[in-house]
Amino acid sequence: MATTSPESAAAAGETNDPIHIRRLELSDHERGFVALLSQLSTCPDLTASEFATRFAELAAQGDDHVILVAEDTSAPERRILATGCLFVERKFLRGGGKAGHVEDVVVDAAARGWGLGLRIVRRLVEIARDAGCYKVILDCTPELRAYYAKCGFVEKGVQMAVYF
Amino acid sequence: MATTSPESAAAAGETNDPIHIRRLELSDHERGFVALLSQLSTCPDLTASEFATRFAELAAQGDDHVILVAEDTSAPERRILATGCLFVERKFLRGGGKAGHVEDVVVDAAARGWGLGLRIVRRLVEIARDAGCYKVILDCTPELRAYYAKCGFVEKGVQMAVYF
Repeated sequence: MATTSPESAAAAGETNDPIHIRRLELSDHERGFVALLSQLSTCPDLTASEFATRFAELAAQGDDHVILVAEDTSAPERRILATGCLFVERKFLRGGGKAGHVEDVVVDAAARGWGLGLRIVRRLVEIARDAGCYKVILDCTPELRAYYAKCGFVEKGVQMAVYF
Repeated sequence: MATTSPESAAAAGETNDPIHIRRLELSDHERGFVALLSQLSTCPDLTASEFATRFAELAAQGDDHVILVAEDTSAPERRILATGCLFVERKFLRGGGKAGHVEDVVVDAAARGWGLGLRIVRRLVEIARDAGCYKVILDCTPELRAYYAKCGFVEKGVQMAVYF
């Protein structure tokens, strides 16, 4: 092959996968994490202080709130190329059960087709199962049904929203 | 009128609305709260201790987790006739925005048509707005689209799920 994406190199069994899937770190503010989110939704930049405050609030939730990122360790600036979030909702039903919610999955436009989003979502589903969730749910556009079906999701209902 | 529901009596301007919408209390375990949830999903009863543990976990989330109930103050046992939940998700996008999630809305079969579910959902939407959420979302079956439209919700996407 003339060129390979980092992902296809890893899929071909080459040894050094430069993509590292890990939990969000405070220093990811400098690795383009907020700019990546702006490819999903309105996302003005946050100051380092604002970022740190929100990071601490979420870290206080422990394993009930997990943000995974895909870091490109081959690039000098070690950019974040993809992310996805899982939070765990504790309920009274299902015997005091827990439901996992996947939110804010986005892959950098330059890295789409490498499978990074699927790797992150599959990992989030594993984390939810290991945490004892009885289900994981997410909302998406109709065009993404087939994408999430690759991670085992089936269509379940309709998402309704009120925007203020 | 020969008979009126508590709700229609209130709507007619009669003074003493026997339905009290308030936050979940620990003592609601004895007022049929878990049995009410069983009308929505699999919901084995919880012991008083199990209920108290989950109640405390959720109470620790403060105003980020609100369960409203509709109590029938005219009945000797002061049964819970309806409930709905709101939790607030803190995000990095939208300038460190917050999204409200409405979950586990259910009305007792004997009290449907009184408008209790709508009262609870509207109140949850108000709470989310007052908390600074930029949106409130929920998932439902397609048959309930018109019901939630009465609270200002519009269809936004598709809900996908994995069950373990």
